[in-house]
Amino acid sequence: MHVIVDFTVVPVGAGISLSPFIAKVEEVLQDSGLSHELHANGTNIEGEWDDVMGAIRRCHEVLHDMGVPRIHTDIKLGTRSDRDQRMADKVTSVRQKLG
Amino acid sequence: MHVIVDFTVVPVGAGISLSPFIAKVEEVLQDSGLSHELHANGTNIEGEWDDVMGAIRRCHEVLHDMGVPRIHTDIKLGTRSDRDQRMADKVTSVRQKLG
Amino acid sequence: MHVIVDFTVVPVGAGISLSPFIAKVEEVLQDSGLSHELHANGTNIEGEWDDVMGAIRRCHEVLHDMGVPRIHTDIKLGTRSDRDQRMADKVTSVRQKLG
Amino acid sequence: MHVIVDFTVVPVGAGISLSPFIAKVEEVLQDSGLSHELHANGTNIEGEWDDVMGAIRRCHEVLHDMGVPRIHTDIKLGTRSDRDQRMADKVTSVRQKLG
Repeated sequence: MHVIVDFTVVPVGAGISLSPFIAKVEEVLQDSGLSHELHANGTNIEGEWDDVMGAIRRCHEVLHDMGVPRIHTDIKLGTRSDRDQRMADKVTSVRQKLG
Repeated sequence: MHVIVDFTVVPVGAGISLSPFIAKVEEVLQDSGLSHELHANGTNIEGEWDDVMGAIRRCHEVLHDMGVPRIHTDIKLGTRSDRDQRMADKVTSVRQKLG
Repeated sequence: MHVIVDFTVVPVGAGISLSPFIAKVEEVLQDSGLSHELHANGTNIEGEWDDVMGAIRRCHEVLHDMGVPRIHTDIKLGTRSDRDQRMADKVTSVRQKLG
Repeated sequence: MHVIVDFTVVPVGAGISLSPFIAKVEEVLQDSGLSHELHANGTNIEGEWDDVMGAIRRCHEVLHDMGVPRIHTDIKLGTRSDRDQRMADKVTSVRQKLG
């Protein structure tokens, strides 16, 4: 099952600057080989359900290993059975309507 | 890795009444054996990471099988490495502060 | 416009124990007079759009005043134009399907 | 209070193709004059709290007027009292750590 995901990792109890941890998340995603894209409030990622969820789990493990005691993560995900859709299609589809 | 999760399944393209689908989600969670609790805007669930994510994946599969063509799901999740925490502890902890 | 909301406040840079802050959020909601209910991963609240959003804004102001330097908040909200629905109806509707 | 927001509007009961509605949301945001950026799973937007929340409310009103009977929206938002931060800073800060 293909899934398109947006997720945001919020390290808690590890100070106020979060960018070192988000950079580490990006490294984990890079290593995963999954298609992903950082944006101002999270990261978009897509792939097979288990691969994507495994990558997010890996992010939690790596951040805890870095000393983050508590992690809050938001995930928004979408699956479709009617047709195949990729992340890039979604933005393109909206832009076409905007003309 | 123990995870405490809140998730909300939003079936799209299957009409306006969502409660039949949410009832099915509850059945899937019941079958999973995981601790879970329905609330007005989602369901709280906890357990091992892979078990919880597997149960949510199963919800998607079952709803697609029921004819839902598109599913949007929100997940909020928390993990901790500093101590063991259960869902029930979280509400109790806040209520104690409220006196 | 009536809105049904689930929201979760995550204080960042204020230590690892969040329950004192969530207790304060509950006090702010109590003062707001809006119908609300704490659950293991957030708080459900409903009312007029501006009242609900004003209450959440007030939570941010009060927590910053308590010394929280950074706050991440998740909001899930629903509005309907087809009929009047209240928070309590949502759980009841699912439970009826479950029999 | 400056707020940085990611939000996703999910029209329910209005068919399976959502891009016409997301295009309308983009128009509303364009009219708002607020800084915003579409991504594969939502839109990032920033500004004064009341302006941003007013724009999201306006999106709900306009979509209901288009005939969408039910709308589910996810909002992730962040405020800071320690320093001024803009959307663009967040991605830049992570990229610098990645080298």
